[in-house]
Amino acid sequence: MSNCVFCRILAREIPAHVILDTPACLAFLDVGPLSEGHLLAIPRRHVERLDQLSEDEAAGLARLLPRLSRAVLGATGAPGLNILQNNGSEAGQVVPHVHFHLIPRRANDGLGYRWNAGRYSAGRVEAVRDALLNALRNDP
Amino acid sequence: MSNCVFCRILAREIPAHVILDTPACLAFLDVGPLSEGHLLAIPRRHVERLDQLSEDEAAGLARLLPRLSRAVLGATGAPGLNILQNNGSEAGQVVPHVHFHLIPRRANDGLGYRWNAGRYSAGRVEAVRDALLNALRNDP
Repeated sequence: MSNCVFCRILAREIPAHVILDTPACLAFLDVGPLSEGHLLAIPRRHVERLDQLSEDEAAGLARLLPRLSRAVLGATGAPGLNILQNNGSEAGQVVPHVHFHLIPRRANDGLGYRWNAGRYSAGRVEAVRDALLNALRNDP
Repeated sequence: MSNCVFCRILAREIPAHVILDTPACLAFLDVGPLSEGHLLAIPRRHVERLDQLSEDEAAGLARLLPRLSRAVLGATGAPGLNILQNNGSEAGQVVPHVHFHLIPRRANDGLGYRWNAGRYSAGRVEAVRDALLNALRNDP
Protein backbone atom coordinates (compact mmCIF):
# COMPACT_ATOMS: atom_id res chain seq x y z
CA MET A 1 0.00 0.00 0.00
CA SER A 2 1.71 3.17 -1.21
CA ASN A 3 0.22 5.38 1.51
CA CYS A 4 0.91 3.03 4.45
CA VAL A 5 3.80 4.32 6.55
CA PHE A 6 4.88 0.78 7.51
CA CYS A 7 4.81 -0.39 3.87
CA ARG A 8 6.97 2.64 3.04
CA ILE A 9 9.41 1.66 5.81
CA LEU A 10 9.46 -1.89 4.36
CA ALA A 11 10.20 -0.40 0.92
CA ARG A 12 12.93 1.74 2.52
CA GLU A 13 11.19 4.89 1.32
CA ILE A 14 11.00 6.14 4.91
CA PRO A 15 14.01 5.64 7.21
CA ALA A 16 13.75 3.57 10.38
CA HIS A 17 16.14 2.11 12.91
CA VAL A 18 15.81 -1.51 11.84
CA ILE A 19 16.77 -4.27 14.28
CA LEU A 20 15.74 -7.38 12.36
CA ASP A 21 14.82 -7.95 8.71
CA THR A 22 13.62 -11.43 7.69
CA PRO A 23 11.19 -12.84 5.09
CA ALA A 24 8.53 -12.96 7.86
CA CYS A 25 9.11 -9.76 9.75
CA LEU A 26 10.66 -6.32 9.99
CA ALA A 27 11.46 -5.08 13.50
CA PHE A 28 12.42 -1.45 14.15
CA LEU A 29 12.40 1.17 16.89
CA ASP A 30 9.12 3.01 17.47
CA VAL A 31 9.75 6.71 16.75
CA GLY A 32 7.46 7.69 19.63
CA PRO A 33 8.68 5.23 22.28
CA LEU A 34 6.80 4.58 25.52
CA SER A 35 10.19 3.59 26.94
CA GLU A 36 13.71 3.26 25.54
CA GLY A 37 13.97 0.22 23.28
CA HIS A 38 10.23 0.14 22.40
CA LEU A 39 10.14 -1.98 19.23
CA LEU A 40 7.60 -2.69 16.52
CA ALA A 41 7.51 -6.04 14.70
CA ILE A 42 5.44 -6.17 11.50
CA PRO A 43 4.63 -8.70 8.77
CA ARG A 44 5.81 -7.80 5.25
CA ARG A 45 2.35 -8.07 3.66
CA HIS A 46 -0.02 -5.15 4.14
CA VAL A 47 -2.73 -6.58 6.38
CA GLU A 48 -4.65 -4.22 8.58
CA ARG A 49 -5.66 -6.51 11.46
CA LEU A 50 -4.47 -9.72 13.09
CA ASP A 51 -7.76 -11.48 12.29
CA GLN A 52 -6.92 -10.99 8.58
CA LEU A 53 -3.40 -12.42 8.84
CA SER A 54 -2.79 -15.98 7.62
CA GLU A 55 -1.82 -18.67 10.12
CA ASP A 56 1.63 -18.95 8.52
CA GLU A 57 2.20 -15.20 8.67
CA ALA A 58 1.20 -15.06 12.34
CA ALA A 59 3.43 -18.04 13.16
CA GLY A 60 6.36 -16.72 11.14
CA LEU A 61 6.26 -13.38 12.89
CA ALA A 62 5.63 -14.73 16.40
CA ARG A 63 8.47 -17.24 16.07
CA LEU A 64 10.81 -14.23 16.35
CA LEU A 65 9.15 -12.73 19.44
CA PRO A 66 11.11 -14.75 22.05
CA ARG A 67 14.41 -13.73 20.43
CA LEU A 68 13.33 -10.08 20.07
CA SER A 69 12.13 -10.13 23.69
CA ARG A 70 15.52 -11.36 24.90
CA ALA A 71 17.23 -8.62 22.87
CA VAL A 72 14.97 -5.89 24.29
CA LEU A 73 15.39 -7.13 27.87
CA GLY A 74 19.13 -7.58 27.44
CA ALA A 75 19.83 -4.29 25.68
CA THR A 76 17.71 -2.12 27.97
CA GLY A 77 18.19 -3.93 31.27
CA ALA A 78 14.43 -3.56 31.86
CA PRO A 79 13.03 -6.28 34.16
CA GLY A 80 9.63 -6.47 32.42
CA LEU A 81 8.16 -6.41 28.93
CA ASN A 82 4.69 -6.00 27.42
CA ILE A 83 3.76 -7.39 24.04
CA LEU A 84 0.80 -5.43 22.70
CA GLN A 85 -1.05 -5.72 19.41
CA ASN A 86 -3.99 -3.38 18.73
CA ASN A 87 -6.78 -4.07 16.22
CA GLY A 88 -9.17 -1.27 15.31
CA SER A 89 -9.26 2.37 16.37
CA GLU A 90 -11.42 1.33 19.36
CA ALA A 91 -8.41 -0.70 20.52
CA GLY A 92 -5.90 2.11 20.02
CA GLN A 93 -4.66 1.10 16.56
CA VAL A 94 -3.26 4.11 14.68
CA VAL A 95 -1.30 2.66 11.74
CA PRO A 96 -3.52 0.22 9.77
CA HIS A 97 -0.81 -2.42 9.21
CA VAL A 98 -0.53 -5.26 11.77
CA HIS A 99 2.16 -4.49 14.34
CA PHE A 100 3.31 -5.97 17.63
CA HIS A 101 4.67 -3.52 20.19
CA LEU A 102 7.48 -4.73 22.46
CA ILE A 103 7.47 -2.29 25.39
CA PRO A 104 10.22 -2.54 28.06
CA ARG A 105 8.79 -2.06 31.55
CA ARG A 106 10.21 -0.92 34.87
CA ALA A 107 8.57 -0.62 38.28
CA ASN A 108 6.44 2.54 38.67
CA ASP A 109 6.94 3.68 35.07
CA GLY A 110 3.31 4.79 34.72
CA LEU A 111 2.72 2.54 31.70
CA GLY A 112 0.70 -0.68 31.41
CA TYR A 113 -2.85 -1.70 30.65
CA ARG A 114 -5.84 -0.23 32.49
CA TRP A 115 -7.01 -3.21 34.54
CA ASN A 116 -10.66 -2.94 35.44
CA ALA A 117 -11.68 -6.58 35.89
CA GLY A 118 -15.31 -7.63 36.06
CA ARG A 119 -17.28 -10.79 36.73
CA TYR A 120 -19.81 -12.70 34.66
CA SER A 121 -23.30 -12.78 36.09
CA ALA A 122 -24.86 -16.21 36.69
CA GLY A 123 -25.38 -18.10 33.44
CA ARG A 124 -23.71 -15.43 31.34
CA VAL A 125 -20.29 -17.09 31.15
CA GLU A 126 -21.76 -20.23 29.56
CA ALA A 127 -23.60 -18.12 26.97
CA VAL A 128 -20.37 -16.30 26.05
CA ARG A 129 -18.44 -19.58 25.89
CA ASP A 130 -21.07 -21.13 23.63
CA ALA A 131 -21.05 -18.09 21.34
CA LEU A 132 -17.26 -18.38 21.06
CA LEU A 133 -17.40 -22.14 20.37
CA ASN A 134 -20.05 -21.52 17.74
CA ALA A 135 -17.97 -18.77 16.09
CA LEU A 136 -14.93 -21.08 15.99
CA ARG A 137 -16.97 -23.91 14.46
CA ASN A 138 -18.29 -21.61 11.75
CA ASP A 139 -14.89 -20.13 10.89
CA PRO A 140 -14.22 -21.19 7.28
CA MET B 1 4.17 -27.19 37.87
CA SER B 2 1.79 -28.48 40.49
CA ASN B 3 1.18 -25.06 42.07
CA CYS B 4 0.64 -23.16 38.80
CA VAL B 5 -3.03 -22.33 38.29
CA PHE B 6 -2.71 -22.55 34.49
CA CYS B 7 -0.94 -25.93 34.66
CA ARG B 8 -3.80 -27.09 36.89
CA ILE B 9 -6.33 -25.87 34.31
CA LEU B 10 -4.35 -27.77 31.63
CA ALA B 11 -4.48 -30.89 33.83
CA ARG B 12 -8.21 -30.31 34.29
CA GLU B 13 -7.74 -30.10 38.07
CA ILE B 14 -9.31 -26.62 38.04
CA PRO B 15 -12.37 -25.98 35.88
CA ALA B 16 -12.31 -23.41 33.09
CA HIS B 17 -14.52 -22.45 30.18
CA VAL B 18 -12.31 -23.85 27.42
CA ILE B 19 -12.71 -22.55 23.88
CA LEU B 20 -9.87 -24.33 22.09
CA ASP B 21 -7.64 -27.25 23.09
CA THR B 22 -4.80 -28.21 20.74
CA PRO B 23 -1.29 -29.68 21.14
CA ALA B 24 0.08 -26.11 20.99
CA CYS B 25 -2.43 -24.15 23.03
CA LEU B 26 -5.29 -24.04 25.48
CA ALA B 27 -7.67 -21.07 25.16
CA PHE B 28 -10.25 -20.32 27.84
CA LEU B 29 -12.28 -17.46 29.26
CA ASP B 30 -10.53 -15.21 31.79
CA VAL B 31 -12.43 -15.50 35.10
CA GLY B 32 -11.89 -11.78 35.79
CA PRO B 33 -12.71 -10.40 32.34
CA LEU B 34 -11.92 -6.82 31.33
CA SER B 35 -14.80 -7.20 28.87
CA GLU B 36 -17.15 -10.02 27.85
CA GLY B 37 -15.29 -12.63 25.82
CA HIS B 38 -11.85 -11.79 27.27
CA LEU B 39 -9.80 -14.93 26.46
CA LEU B 40 -6.47 -16.33 27.57
CA ALA B 41 -4.33 -18.45 25.23
CA ILE B 42 -1.48 -20.40 26.84
CA PRO B 43 1.20 -22.89 25.77
CA ARG B 44 0.99 -26.36 27.33
CA ARG B 45 4.52 -26.31 28.75
CA HIS B 46 5.08 -24.39 31.96
CA VAL B 47 7.22 -21.45 30.86
CA GLU B 48 7.08 -18.27 32.86
CA ARG B 49 7.97 -15.68 30.22
CA LEU B 50 7.84 -15.28 26.45
CA ASP B 51 11.61 -14.84 26.24
CA GLN B 52 11.93 -18.41 27.61
CA LEU B 53 9.51 -19.96 25.10
CA SER B 54 10.96 -21.89 22.14
CA GLU B 55 10.48 -20.54 18.63
CA ASP B 56 8.24 -23.50 17.77
CA GLU B 57 6.08 -23.00 20.86
CA ALA B 58 5.66 -19.29 20.10
CA ALA B 59 4.82 -20.02 16.46
CA GLY B 60 2.44 -22.87 17.32
CA LEU B 61 0.49 -20.72 19.73
CA ALA B 62 0.45 -17.57 17.59
CA ARG B 63 -0.73 -19.52 14.55
CA LEU B 64 -4.09 -19.79 16.35
CA LEU B 65 -4.37 -16.09 17.21
CA PRO B 66 -6.00 -14.95 13.91
CA ARG B 67 -8.67 -17.65 14.26
CA LEU B 68 -9.23 -16.90 17.95
CA SER B 69 -9.40 -13.18 17.14
CA ARG B 70 -12.11 -13.77 14.53
CA ALA B 71 -14.05 -15.87 17.05
CA VAL B 72 -13.82 -13.20 19.75
CA LEU B 73 -14.83 -10.41 17.36
CA GLY B 74 -17.62 -12.49 15.85
CA ALA B 75 -19.04 -13.81 19.11
CA THR B 76 -18.97 -10.50 20.98
CA GLY B 77 -19.67 -8.08 18.15
CA ALA B 78 -16.88 -5.87 19.51
CA PRO B 79 -15.29 -3.68 16.81
CA GLY B 80 -11.79 -3.77 18.33
CA LEU B 81 -9.42 -6.20 20.02
CA ASN B 82 -6.21 -5.95 22.01
CA ILE B 83 -3.69 -8.78 22.22
CA LEU B 84 -1.61 -8.35 25.36
CA GLN B 85 1.13 -10.51 26.80
CA ASN B 86 2.82 -9.44 30.05
CA ASN B 87 6.27 -10.58 31.19
CA GLY B 88 7.36 -9.87 34.74
CA SER B 89 5.50 -8.30 37.66
CA GLU B 90 6.78 -4.88 36.49
CA ALA B 91 4.76 -5.48 33.30
CA GLY B 92 1.59 -6.56 35.13
CA GLN B 93 2.14 -10.34 34.95
CA VAL B 94 0.29 -12.11 37.77
CA VAL B 95 0.25 -15.82 36.82
CA PRO B 96 3.82 -17.00 36.04
CA HIS B 97 2.88 -19.09 32.98
CA VAL B 98 3.03 -17.43 29.53
CA HIS B 99 -0.41 -16.20 28.48
CA PHE B 100 -1.81 -14.02 25.71
CA HIS B 101 -4.86 -11.94 26.60
CA LEU B 102 -7.44 -11.35 23.85
CA ILE B 103 -9.47 -8.35 25.05
CA PRO B 104 -12.53 -7.23 23.05
CA ARG B 105 -12.70 -3.43 22.79
CA ARG B 106 -15.49 -0.94 22.25
CA ALA B 107 -15.37 2.85 21.95
CA ASN B 108 -15.07 4.65 25.31
CA ASP B 109 -14.81 1.43 27.34
CA GLY B 110 -12.13 2.89 29.62
CA LEU B 111 -9.66 0.08 28.83
CA GLY B 112 -6.48 0.18 26.74
CA TYR B 113 -2.82 0.89 27.26
CA ARG B 114 -1.55 4.06 28.95
CA TRP B 115 0.07 5.90 26.03
CA ASN B 116 2.73 8.33 27.18
CA ALA B 117 5.00 8.55 24.14
CA GLY B 118 8.42 10.11 24.35
CA ARG B 119 11.23 11.03 21.98
CA TYR B 120 14.86 9.99 21.82
CA SER B 121 17.36 12.77 22.45
CA ALA B 122 19.97 13.41 19.74
CA GLY B 123 22.28 10.45 19.29
CA ARG B 124 20.41 8.29 21.78
CA VAL B 125 18.33 6.37 19.23
CA GLU B 126 21.46 5.09 17.46
CA ALA B 127 22.93 3.94 20.79
CA VAL B 128 19.73 2.04 21.64
CA ARG B 129 19.59 0.49 18.16
CA ASP B 130 23.22 -0.60 18.39
CA ALA B 131 22.64 -2.15 21.83
CA LEU B 132 19.68 -4.10 20.39
CA LEU B 133 21.65 -5.26 17.34
CA ASN B 134 24.48 -6.34 19.64
CA ALA B 135 22.08 -8.24 21.92
CA LEU B 136 20.57 -10.05 18.90
CA ARG B 137 24.02 -10.98 17.57
CA ASN B 138 25.02 -12.43 20.95
CA ASP B 139 21.80 -14.42 21.41
CA PRO B 140 22.93 -18.08 21.43
